[in-house]
Amino acid sequence: MKQITKYVVKNSLKRIFLYKICLTRLKMMGVEKVFSYTLGIETGVSPDQVRTDFSEFKIKGNKKGGYEINELLVTMERIFHWNKDHNIVLIGMGNLGQALSKYSKFVQKNMNLVATFDIDPFKQKMRSGIPVYNMNRLKEIIDRFNVRIAIVTVPEISAQEVADEIIKYGIKGIINFAPVLLRVPPDIIVNNVNLCDELESVIYSIHNTIF
Amino acid sequence: MKQITKYVVKNSLKRIFLYKICLTRLKMMGVEKVFSYTLGIETGVSPDQVRTDFSEFKIKGNKKGGYEINELLVTMERIFHWNKDHNIVLIGMGNLGQALSKYSKFVQKNMNLVATFDIDPFKQKMRSGIPVYNMNRLKEIIDRFNVRIAIVTVPEISAQEVADEIIKYGIKGIINFAPVLLRVPPDIIVNNVNLCDELESVIYSIHNTIF
Repeated sequence: MKQITKYVVKNSLKRIFLYKICLTRLKMMGVEKVFSYTLGIETGVSPDQVRTDFSEFKIKGNKKGGYEINELLVTMERIFHWNKDHNIVLIGMGNLGQALSKYSKFVQKNMNLVATFDIDPFKQKMRSGIPVYNMNRLKEIIDRFNVRIAIVTVPEISAQEVADEIIKYGIKGIINFAPVLLRVPPDIIVNNVNLCDELESVIYSIHNTIF
Repeated sequence: MKQITKYVVKNSLKRIFLYKICLTRLKMMGVEKVFSYTLGIETGVSPDQVRTDFSEFKIKGNKKGGYEINELLVTMERIFHWNKDHNIVLIGMGNLGQALSKYSKFVQKNMNLVATFDIDPFKQKMRSGIPVYNMNRLKEIIDRFNVRIAIVTVPEISAQEVADEIIKYGIKGIINFAPVLLRVPPDIIVNNVNLCDELESVIYSIHNTIF
């Protein structure tokens, strides 16, 4: 019996990424210490919120004289697994899939997109840096590269079927771009990314400031 | 003096989009009424959460016999402005910008991408459905189509400058794909979309189920 996971990432985790952007920029500017007050100003939250978020994820630091930026970044790298390599596959080489497969930022972040997949034989012949394989090689590639994360950019109608298959082969986390609520076992993480929803959130918020 | 907005969209608003996916699917299946219990199961939250979210956004419905799906969708359309046309511009025709400019889902959702912009004269000559203009035509196009929403897919280093310019010309909401915290006046809405962060959220969550 399949169960439904929750689809909305915690806001505290989202804020962690905002803090990281700030900390990285401050470090590049040569700054060594930062107070939660400054991090709060830069990310639009209260200093209390910054401290609560850090404490939720067990990020410690000397609060009296401010946080040591370098130390903070090292701790966060360890807690959030930013310093490890992650092999990733992408399924569905439509427009969005093709764009993501060329996204240079992944490499900078130790995310190795090792292979992409599509049912279309024409796309399998595309000349690009990363190979485009037939779907029947999914298991082989996932096994060979010990892949646990997949980006799913297939059409809405195929998303559930693709999810079922990759989960069977050992995928534990899915970034799902299809506007479908995937039914997955409870130990599988699904992060839905829907570009239309992001736009609609902005449209709503322009009319009703709720941020 | 510029101020910082908050960058994290409320989770209740994110859940609204999940409810919409469910309701639309149920409607397509010919279902006419739904209970908060069912919506909760489908989206991975409690029935109480569904009712609280609806009440936060002033979405009313007859709870006793369940919600009328059609009525609910019409109400949501009105509240969230889903039934109106929105003109949009996109700035930065790199890989991601090009992919988004071809994203057919926007059209289905009444989002008219009226123009795209890039500083590269070569890109301005690209043959695609949607014109690619020189940046010096931003004001003219934003005025002509009464555009209030912009998608920013320029490199990190240019994002703030582009944001300053489009806000000057009347843009009120920005979907920002650059990994930068834009500094904007308090009445401007910024929704940051960062694909690496989405991946890193999944990686973290695989190791520590916090969803």
